[in-house]
Formats: sequence, structure tokens, C-alpha cells
Amino acid sequence: MMNSYRNLSFKQLKEMKPIITRNLAWFSKHPTQQTFGAKLKRRLKNLLIITVVGVGSFYSYRAYRSYKWSKEVSESDSTTGTKPRIVVLGTGWGAVPLLKHIDTQKYEVVCVSPRNYFLMTPLLPSVSVGTVETRTVIESIRSLVGPKIKYVEAHCVDVDTKTKVITCNSDGTNTVSRGDDVKTLLEPSKRAGGASSRIIKDSARTRPQFDMKYDILVVAVGSENNTFNIPGVEEHAHFLKELLDARRIRSAISDAFESAMTPSQTAEERKRLLHFVIVGGGPTGVEFAAELADFVREDLQYYFPRLVANDVKITLIEALDHVLSMMDKQISDYTEKHFRRENIDVLMNTFVKSIKQREVVVQFKGSNELTSIPCSVVVWATGIKARPITNRIREIIGLKAQSNRMGILTDRYLRAKGVTDGSIYAIGDCATIEQPKLVDQIQTLFEEADTQRRGALDLQQFKALVERKIHDFPQLEIFSKTIEKTFEEADKEKSGFLTLATLHSALEKADKKIRALPATAQVAAQEGRYIADLLNQVTDLKSSDYQQQNLQSFRYKHMGALAYVGGDSAVLDFSGTKPIFDLFNLQPLSGRSAAYLWKSFYFTEMFTGRTKTLLAFDWVRTRLYGRDISRY
Amino acid sequence: MMNSYRNLSFKQLKEMKPIITRNLAWFSKHPTQQTFGAKLKRRLKNLLIITVVGVGSFYSYRAYRSYKWSKEVSESDSTTGTKPRIVVLGTGWGAVPLLKHIDTQKYEVVCVSPRNYFLMTPLLPSVSVGTVETRTVIESIRSLVGPKIKYVEAHCVDVDTKTKVITCNSDGTNTVSRGDDVKTLLEPSKRAGGASSRIIKDSARTRPQFDMKYDILVVAVGSENNTFNIPGVEEHAHFLKELLDARRIRSAISDAFESAMTPSQTAEERKRLLHFVIVGGGPTGVEFAAELADFVREDLQYYFPRLVANDVKITLIEALDHVLSMMDKQISDYTEKHFRRENIDVLMNTFVKSIKQREVVVQFKGSNELTSIPCSVVVWATGIKARPITNRIREIIGLKAQSNRMGILTDRYLRAKGVTDGSIYAIGDCATIEQPKLVDQIQTLFEEADTQRRGALDLQQFKALVERKIHDFPQLEIFSKTIEKTFEEADKEKSGFLTLATLHSALEKADKKIRALPATAQVAAQEGRYIADLLNQVTDLKSSDYQQQNLQSFRYKHMGALAYVGGDSAVLDFSGTKPIFDLFNLQPLSGRSAAYLWKSFYFTEMFTGRTKTLLAFDWVRTRLYGRDISRY
Repeated sequence: MMNSYRNLSFKQLKEMKPIITRNLAWFSKHPTQQTFGAKLKRRLKNLLIITVVGVGSFYSYRAYRSYKWSKEVSESDSTTGTKPRIVVLGTGWGAVPLLKHIDTQKYEVVCVSPRNYFLMTPLLPSVSVGTVETRTVIESIRSLVGPKIKYVEAHCVDVDTKTKVITCNSDGTNTVSRGDDVKTLLEPSKRAGGASSRIIKDSARTRPQFDMKYDILVVAVGSENNTFNIPGVEEHAHFLKELLDARRIRSAISDAFESAMTPSQTAEERKRLLHFVIVGGGPTGVEFAAELADFVREDLQYYFPRLVANDVKITLIEALDHVLSMMDKQISDYTEKHFRRENIDVLMNTFVKSIKQREVVVQFKGSNELTSIPCSVVVWATGIKARPITNRIREIIGLKAQSNRMGILTDRYLRAKGVTDGSIYAIGDCATIEQPKLVDQIQTLFEEADTQRRGALDLQQFKALVERKIHDFPQLEIFSKTIEKTFEEADKEKSGFLTLATLHSALEKADKKIRALPATAQVAAQEGRYIADLLNQVTDLKSSDYQQQNLQSFRYKHMGALAYVGGDSAVLDFSGTKPIFDLFNLQPLSGRSAAYLWKSFYFTEMFTGRTKTLLAFDWVRTRLYGRDISRY
Repeated sequence: MMNSYRNLSFKQLKEMKPIITRNLAWFSKHPTQQTFGAKLKRRLKNLLIITVVGVGSFYSYRAYRSYKWSKEVSESDSTTGTKPRIVVLGTGWGAVPLLKHIDTQKYEVVCVSPRNYFLMTPLLPSVSVGTVETRTVIESIRSLVGPKIKYVEAHCVDVDTKTKVITCNSDGTNTVSRGDDVKTLLEPSKRAGGASSRIIKDSARTRPQFDMKYDILVVAVGSENNTFNIPGVEEHAHFLKELLDARRIRSAISDAFESAMTPSQTAEERKRLLHFVIVGGGPTGVEFAAELADFVREDLQYYFPRLVANDVKITLIEALDHVLSMMDKQISDYTEKHFRRENIDVLMNTFVKSIKQREVVVQFKGSNELTSIPCSVVVWATGIKARPITNRIREIIGLKAQSNRMGILTDRYLRAKGVTDGSIYAIGDCATIEQPKLVDQIQTLFEEADTQRRGALDLQQFKALVERKIHDFPQLEIFSKTIEKTFEEADKEKSGFLTLATLHSALEKADKKIRALPATAQVAAQEGRYIADLLNQVTDLKSSDYQQQNLQSFRYKHMGALAYVGGDSAVLDFSGTKPIFDLFNLQPLSGRSAAYLWKSFYFTEMFTGRTKTLLAFDWVRTRLYGRDISRY
């Protein structure tokens, strides 16, 4: 939809070119020698043409949109029931690329998720202080994937792998992830005389439970916050994972400042109210601390000059000895230095033991004492765990095959292990790809490679082994460029051959490179796109031997990592990225130029014209008018 | 602040003029004859100049803003305690014009309100369907009134008129009008496995109760929704008075559509879910019905074509025999006709008897039977009542003087009746101006006018009476242009004199024109502005005889009424307006041109550059990309 609009608007610009040129020419060539009447006439004429073209294109666009939707709707209707049905659970980073690229001519596609929009999660820290508005970072799933894909707002609560049926529910107990779902009316005594909006209304919706058949089920339900069973986190700390979290944090910050302004407030309590604590030095924690520091310096400073000068404090707590520990060491150092300049306290090697209503209790590494940190708003930005439905699916499949507690274990085609017909796929945070160790299968590998039954492999055979198996064992990648060197190093006796023992030590090196893919948007998006391409290519759904059908297994391409660290600075890490970035030998980037790269990244990443427009407007608005401090 | 920015940006434009002209000239005069290098060089040079000017002005503006705020802050500090203190309760239509125009050189001004922003209430119907975003219709009170006025986020809960002290409270029971204040945690069993945002976090704010002295207290607390004790309204109907109401309605509409899409939904239940009922045919009810119809036709139609075609229904219930009954009859007719075209059912002469979870029970005029209307979202847009604090103040002053249950009774200087030192003012929805009847004081009036003790008044004396008393009795206004005619009509015997009896019948006619001012933003804003001007002029605060100090009493100037009725149409009513509009003899206006007037009205009414920019952007965005249907 957006693409066609873009074409139209370009065409429209082209049509307007002669008019613009004429206008420009007129402005410069005839500055004074014309009468006022002639001038006015000419101007009005041009204005009329521009208006007609503009209004015309606008209405053609609307008519076109209307036509396209109704056409697609009727198309998607006529073919229902004859095609294999793919059911996708989720509307996040994994599900959306899948839904956008799946061939709806070949499949009937149904998306089931309790959240009817896609959320640009990396912008949540910006939303939580008002740099960017809430509606900017979401896009309705219906407008995103169009009418050809059916969407149902519901929770999947059960799966029957034998009959291939899912059970969905969205009424009552298993409520949708919205704050307004907390259906608790205040007691009448508290209500009396209160403003209307304090009462949560009961809209009396009904959503009966329903079953749905699937031919292929793609689980892309993501993860939920992990409290690591630390007491008080659930009750007193804010998470930063959903849109409402961001909205609540924004409200809580404003609340803290307004509370500190209460005339009878004590100095000590004021300091507590304005102490903001972030737990977790990953990208989310770092970006939130950075955005908060920006908010304080750029806006709150004007409204609360004395509080900002004397009482405001931001503390970031990290259990490891570095923030952004998954990125390059250079970047961690830069971020820590930068945070000191921005007056963000970073407590490294510090463990949170419990969170109480007005304090965080921590323990420093190497110490047995507990320290209490008085504070008000605590943001919990550390760790994820599997959702209940993910664990339910693991149980149904069988915990023997599904032994990984982090999520659904899949093969390299992202099919859940233990599902014999290969009908269940899992992607994103809720999935882990099984990465077999080379040494576990060394006997088979060796025998297969030793074509001449010599009990030893020469360089050619070793090369062939690596090339043939690199798909099944991605860890072999590290040998691909240095195969001769590896061979020489392994063959310590310079015999020209590798025995089972020397091969073992070489493969052990490769196995050390096995690492689960990080739970990032980037991984989920690539997996989603991969499944779409895979299913579009599959010729025989019945046969689960994809190797035979000449289908490629999933390979993750790391494109780098980046984070905003405040004060118009960002950090970017290209280490570990493949071809292109390696070619230019890009160093970890930090500072202001990185911030522009960071912004332009969101510009290309955002999915639609609407969100791009909104994001650009939000940034300009924040620059010009600052962030709003209204609390609602 | 905004003004100075506007000037700066104009200056900046002026500076850029030669550059622009040169660029334009270059574009048209040298289309091809230059080398690429020269072209590029020139372009880059111009780009550099524009960038430098732009960035320079931007940073000068930021530096200027920073300087101005800090200067004003230190100014307002140095003089605290030496000036009489005005305490204003409220941040609505009455309070804001007062705060903006009060002389802070003369007074120390403190604003106390639980809502830390000003809300553009007339745009709430637009917000409730997403035509306009939430942040667009609010402006932080701190940025609105600047650092010279102190703001405290709190409820006033008590007033001591003797010691002139208010007691404020915002912790615990008397919570602020925000949904997030409903501090109810779900039980752990329901929480387990739920998304983070379902839990309302306890930010552990503390706001001790405090007392505050005042010299002048201005009560501008507004009103709250009146349910007329109809059962079920509080529990099941949405109000449309605060920002969160609009947000909740938007969420409820989206919820209804998503529920209707649940696969196992029955046809009957689908119809119920998509039946939206609005109670009240005043401007709020009419505008909400109109915006909802727009939302359905312009956006929901694309996403839910079958539901919109078959199941969606909008019903407006009005107890009187006309919608918009306070406006011209022509306008009511137009609106009703227009609504029929827009498929909005209007039930006139219909009384709501109760609201249940899934139905509205009504009674039609002249019938004794009760009829049940199955529906989901009900919007209650009818009637207001006094807030608890308003009634508390009435009680403290004494219900003998404060006998009006609608609000605080004031004299024509807007001072609360019964407060002997005249230190309490009341404006807006929470206030009613006492309008004395002429006939009640006819004896005194007659004697005063009868300067020659003849027991009768001639035309000159009658004229003098009307002119002298028009300020105390605004109802005399109707005579002002037709004084001779009135005299002749009253003097039926053509004696040339009016006796006490004939004067009585003439004044009775005038008394019939007494009407309480409507509870509109227009009235509140004029009252707020009036108090600012009055207090800026007062020379002797101790003396409460304002007539002696030559101060004018309050006179309301009706500027017309207007409402949006959907499909790019609006209605405007200028009847009853004074001078300017009467001169042009403007007829009630309706249709598309009225809609543009309606929009331009908001453009001039909106308070700051920020909100204007946001509103313009919202309108363009809605046109281009439609309204968002995401539910959160």
C-alpha cells in the first residue's frame, strides 16, 4: 500500500516539475517589471494548478487504496479452504517479516496474537521519556500485512500436535497485555466524587474460546521479563518491554518530580523521590539511562531548576564488570566514560538482592553486606525467560526432545525438534537452534571423509569435509578461509595426514565457537524472513527431508549492534559482522556521527511511510518544543 | 516564550532571503551551462550557509530559552513573601487565562490542581477516535504559564475562610484523576505468566498534606459528570470529560471490533458488540457520534469491510425533542438530517432508565414500557454537577448565602456570596453569578428614579433608570435599543408616565431574559480573563466596594456556538452574539465551509505554537494515513 503511494507521489512531483520551474524562473526574472494585477493573476493560476494536482492525487490515492483493499478482500475470500493453512503465533519482530513475505497465493495465512500491532521495541526507551510518542512506534498489524492475511486477537493456550489444532482464548483469565485489562473497580467509597477516568470501565466484551486447524504452525511469541525470583521486582520495578511499560514510566517520572515539589516535602524524601535506578547494563538499560539523562538536562532543567541542580540522581546497576558487555570492549569503555560526563552513576559488579517499595537492596561483589539504596522509580532491564505458552508447547512435544528451558529447540530449518511431521516452526526469542557439536559425531564424520579407508585424512579430504559439512555445523566457518593453516597446525608431526585424534583437537576448536544466537530483533527478523522464503520454496510439504528438496538451512548474518548513549551520541559495533563490513574494516564507532547513523538506521528499519513520517516529526518536535511533562 | 521564538524564526527567514533569491535565480538562469564541479561547489556553499544560519538560530533559541527561564526563576524567587498571594484552584479553561494575564509584579501567584496540564476539552471527541492524538490537546501548565507562577500538583480538600488557609492533599485516598492511580495489583495467580504491563506499579510516591495561606482564593475547579443517580452509569458507561476517558473509549472501540472478529462469535453477539450508544444530544454527544461515524467510514471500513457493511450501528439518545437544543432550530434540523445520511440513529424523546453490562434500558416519552437496547460501548455525555470541593466550600461559607446547588454563588464581580472580606472568587463551571430580579427591588428602583417624587416616571427618567442600572441588571440589555418603544408599550394609557404597576409589567419582561450562563469553555475563559484584569486594576484590596473603585462588573460576550457533525461538516450558530456578528447579520452556518471555520477556530484558540503544530500535523496525518486501530 505504502509503496504504491510512494510511486504516486513521485509521479505527482514529476507532473509538477514544469510548474515549479516556471515559478522559480518567474520569481528571479521578473522581480518588479510586472503590474500587480498580472502578478496576482499568474500567481493565482499557478496556485490553482498546484491545488488541482494536489487534491486530485490525494483523492486518487484514497480511491486507489479503497479499490485495492476491496479487491484483495474478495480475492482472499474466494480461495479460503483450498490451500494449506499456516498459523503464525505473534506480531513481533519474527512474525511480521514472515507475514509480509509469505506467498498468500500458495498458503492461507492466519495470525493469532493478543497484541494487534507491531511494536518497534528498540525505541521504547525514547518513548518512556517522550522523545518519541507512543503511536509512532507501533503499526497496526492489519494495515501492516493487508487484508490477505487474517488476524485474530487472541491468546493461543493449547496445541494438539496430533490433530493439528490450536485452542485460543482471550476472555477472562488469560487477559491481553494491556493495562486497561485490569478490571478492578474501586470500592464505591473511594469512587464517590472522583473524576470519571479513575474508574476502569467494563465494556462487556465477549470472546468465546475457539479451536483452529493448522497445517503449519509458526511459534513467534517472544519472551517475557525474567525477575530471577528476586523479591519485589514484580511489585515495585517497572519493566521496559511493552508500550504500556513506557507510558507508565513516563508518568512515574513526572509523578516523582511533582511529588518532590510538594511544599511540605523533606529534603531527604526529595532526594529519594528523584533517585532513578536502572537495573541491567544491556542496550535497553543503557539507552533508557541515556534518554532519562537527556530528558533531565534538556527539559526538566527548565521546569525544575533547583531540583535538577540539587536532587536528581540516575544510577545504573550492572552485575558484570562492564556495561554493554556483549559489544566491543572499546564501546563499553566509551559508554562508561560518557555516562560519567552525563552524571549517570554506574555501579559495576553489583547484585540486586531485593526491591522494596522505596529502596533497592544490593550486594557488592566480594562483600557479604547488603546495602540499601533509597530511590523511587526502578526500571528492570535485565534478562528474559520463556512464556507459559512456549513451555506448554515444549511439554506437549515432550521434554525429552525439548530439553532447553530457554525456549523451543529447533533444527537448522527452524523446525521444532521432536515433531515428527515437521509441522511446527519456532523463531525469535522463544526459539533456540540446536547446534550439534562436531566432536560428538567425529566417528561418523571421519569415516565419511576417509574415502580411501586409510584411517587418516589428507588436506583435500579435510577440505572436502569442511565444505560439505559447513551447513550442518556453522561453527566450521572459522576454518573456511584458513583451511591450510588449520591443517598444518593440527598436523603437528607434519605427516601430511590428520588422524582421528588430531582431527578431534581441530574440531574442538571449532566447537568452542558455538554460541546460541542472541535474543535480538535482528535474529528474529532474519528467522522470520527465512521461514517465509523456505515455505514459499517448499515443493512437498509432506516430506520433511528438506536437504533432499535442495533447501538451505538458516544462517544468521550479524549486521552489527548499536545503542544510543545520550547527549546526541551513540555507539555502533560492527565486530563479528560478515563480508561488507569486514571489507571496509570498520572500527567500533562512537559519538555524534554514530548517533546520526543510529537515527538513519531507524529510518530504514521502520516499516511504513506512516511510522517514518511520525518519527521524523517527533524528532523535530522534541528539538523545537522539548518533551511534554504533562502527567496522565 | 513561543512569541519570542516566532520572532526569531521570522528574522532568520529574513536573513535567508538573499540566499534563497540567489538560489532561485541560479536554478532558472543557469540550467546547463555550468560544469558539474562549479555547480557542486556553489551548491555546497549555499547549503553550508543555510545550515550555519539554521543551526545557529536553533542554538541561539535554546540558549535564549534557557537564559529567560533562569532569569524569571531568580526574579520570582527574590520577591516571594512581600506581595499579596493569589491561590488559584484549577488548570482548566477558567484558570489558564487568569494565570496568563495576572500581573506577577503585583501578586505572588500559586496554582493548585491535581491535573498538571491544560486540556483542550472541545477536541476530546476527536481524540477518542484518533483523529487527533492525546498529547496534541494538552499543554503542561508549567510551560504554559512560565516559571513566575508556582504550580503544586495537589487537591485542595479544605478551606478556612477565617485564617485564610487552604489544606491540600494528594496522597492516598483523594487520588489524582488518572487511571494509573488505581493501585490494585492482580492476585499472584492471575499475574503468573502475564505480560509486565498488566501490573500497575507502585512508585511509592509520598505527598504529605500541607496548608497554604492565601490573600485571594480563586476557585476554578470545574465540574464532574452527573449520572442523575441512574443505575449502572458509573460502572458501565464511559464519560468524555478527561483525557483518559478518550483514551479508554478509543481502546474500547478497537476492542469491540477485535472481539467481533473472534471466529466462534455468534451473529447476534457480533451485532451487540458493534452497537455504539451515545447518551446526550449536546455538543459533546453530537461531536463524538460524528467522529465515530467518520472513523467507521474512513478507516474501519478498510480493515473490517464485512462488519462495517452488516453489523456496525451508532445510536444517539436524547431526552428532548431535538439535538443541539441550545443552538438555533435550523441547526438542529440540519444536524438530524445530516446524521440520518451518516447512518447515525437518533432516538429523540427517549429517557435512559438504567445501564447494564450489555444493554441500555430506555423509556420512550408517552410510553410506560421499558425497552432494552443491546450494545457494547456506551458514552455518557449529558449533564454536570458540582465537585465535592465546591460543595465543601459552599458549606464552609454557609449554605444560607450559598443556596445554589449547581455551584458557588457569586456577585457580579465573581466574588463568592457570603464571604465578607471578598477574598474568594469563583469562575467557570463551579460558579453561578447571582442575577437579581428587577421586580424584587422595584420599590427602591422606582423611588430612586422618581427624582421629582411624582409617583410616576417620564421617558427621560425611565431612560436614566435603564442606563444607570444596566450594569447591575444585565437583563435590561433587551431595552437598550428600543427604549421608546418599550415605554410606549408599557404606558398603555398613553399618559406619558409609568406608574409602579406599569413599570412592574415592563421589568417583568426583562426578568424573563435572566438565564444562568452556560457551562462552556467560552464563559470560563472570559471569567478567568476578567478576574485577571480586575485584580490587576484593584488599588485597594482591603476595600470590597469595587463600584467605588470604578471597577466594571463581569459581562459575558457570547461569540457563537459551533459543533462538528461529521463528514467534513460543521454547524455554527451566531445567534445571540453581540456587535460584530450582528452587523454582518450572519445566519446559522452549516456544511463544509463551516467545518473549515471550525478548524480555523481551533487554530486561533489553541494556546501555544507547539499545540498548533501538533494539531496541524495530526490533521494531515489522519488525511494521509488514516487513524491507527492499534489497541493498547
